[in-house]
Amino acid sequence: MITQPHDHIVKSHDDERQRLKGELLRMGEMAAAQLEAALDVVERRDDKAAERIVGNDEAIDALEHEISQDVMKLALRGPMARDLREILAALRIAADIERIGDYAANVAKRSMALNLSPPLPHTRGLSALGALAVQQARDVFVAYRDDDAVAAQRVRARDADLDAQYTGLFRELLTYMMEDARSITPCTHLLFMAKNIERIGDHATNIAENVWFLVHGDDALPPRDKRDETNTAT
Amino acid sequence: MITQPHDHIVKSHDDERQRLKGELLRMGEMAAAQLEAALDVVERRDDKAAERIVGNDEAIDALEHEISQDVMKLALRGPMARDLREILAALRIAADIERIGDYAANVAKRSMALNLSPPLPHTRGLSALGALAVQQARDVFVAYRDDDAVAAQRVRARDADLDAQYTGLFRELLTYMMEDARSITPCTHLLFMAKNIERIGDHATNIAENVWFLVHGDDALPPRDKRDETNTAT
Repeated sequence: MITQPHDHIVKSHDDERQRLKGELLRMGEMAAAQLEAALDVVERRDDKAAERIVGNDEAIDALEHEISQDVMKLALRGPMARDLREILAALRIAADIERIGDYAANVAKRSMALNLSPPLPHTRGLSALGALAVQQARDVFVAYRDDDAVAAQRVRARDADLDAQYTGLFRELLTYMMEDARSITPCTHLLFMAKNIERIGDHATNIAENVWFLVHGDDALPPRDKRDETNTAT
Repeated sequence: MITQPHDHIVKSHDDERQRLKGELLRMGEMAAAQLEAALDVVERRDDKAAERIVGNDEAIDALEHEISQDVMKLALRGPMARDLREILAALRIAADIERIGDYAANVAKRSMALNLSPPLPHTRGLSALGALAVQQARDVFVAYRDDDAVAAQRVRARDADLDAQYTGLFRELLTYMMEDARSITPCTHLLFMAKNIERIGDHATNIAENVWFLVHGDDALPPRDKRDETNTAT
């Protein structure tokens, strides 16, 4: 069979996509691993490990910087230029992963402040919330890997569970604070850590929406409930 | 004088830049005005106005979507393609402004929850913090308008003041919570509102860094202290 010039362009475009996807997935796995490690140091009260996690975040930031430059260079020079969607989606997904990494590092940072107070019994809820966020992140990366808009839509729908769990934890923490004034400072850290995890869920949702956008373009996504309900807590 | 083809390209590139800048500045002013309005409704305890602010946020989101599509179309078709920096900076600045709008809407949303409790004497600190953030946002938009990397660097340096004021307010709010358990829920809302405003300052800083990047490329920025210090509060 004789290779047509057209085939060559298609192939090189596919190669580019695959390479870019590989980079983004590697960045995504780094961010998910950071979050897992951050949840682990909260349980283990391990300041040294927390510092390492905070330090690792720079590598994710650097990767985002590199990827966004690469995407644009590819886009402007190569066959990707014809596909605006891919470029925008890749840039946005890289930015969302970078934010997930930031929030994971914040959880690790606050765990160090938490370790200055006696151990709290209230970190279990945080672990459960965090585990859900790790799952959401990993699931959306798989959906992106497979161009699977249906799986992405499932991740997006499941964000409501994460929000509900966050709202429950938020209210629970408020009651501990009311019962014992000494728990106010550590529980405030837990509130912010929970909020960081809830935001990670939002970024997983953003990535899910970009996978949808990649597959279907600007076709309307099914509507979805809004997120953080704690702003109506009284 | 005979117009050279080269002049024509330069002119059209400048026109494009100016148009894009105009759009981004308009979006920026919308976000700054939203933040001002949100701070105002906190003081006035005006739920109706708060709802309007939350509703307005969609217009900013839509504008970001439009601008990022426009930027990419211009980039891929027009003479802007030669300037990777401008494209990346415009996309990032639009995303940062969109986030500023989100945080302003969050402040408005939480003000409604705050209005369910009796008035607190502690909203003055929030207003002052918010006014500083509005100033930072407006100053960085002017720096962007004028391609003024020095002014941008000043905004970036001043973020430390905003962070210090945020840290002070955070600690102050903790003491009110410890003194009176009934203030825990409203003060928690104020803590999150303060955090939203602190994050707006971070996004103004990001924009400042993009103005620097626009003018100087990847030349190293002077180093800067890290932000939120409340994660070390004990």
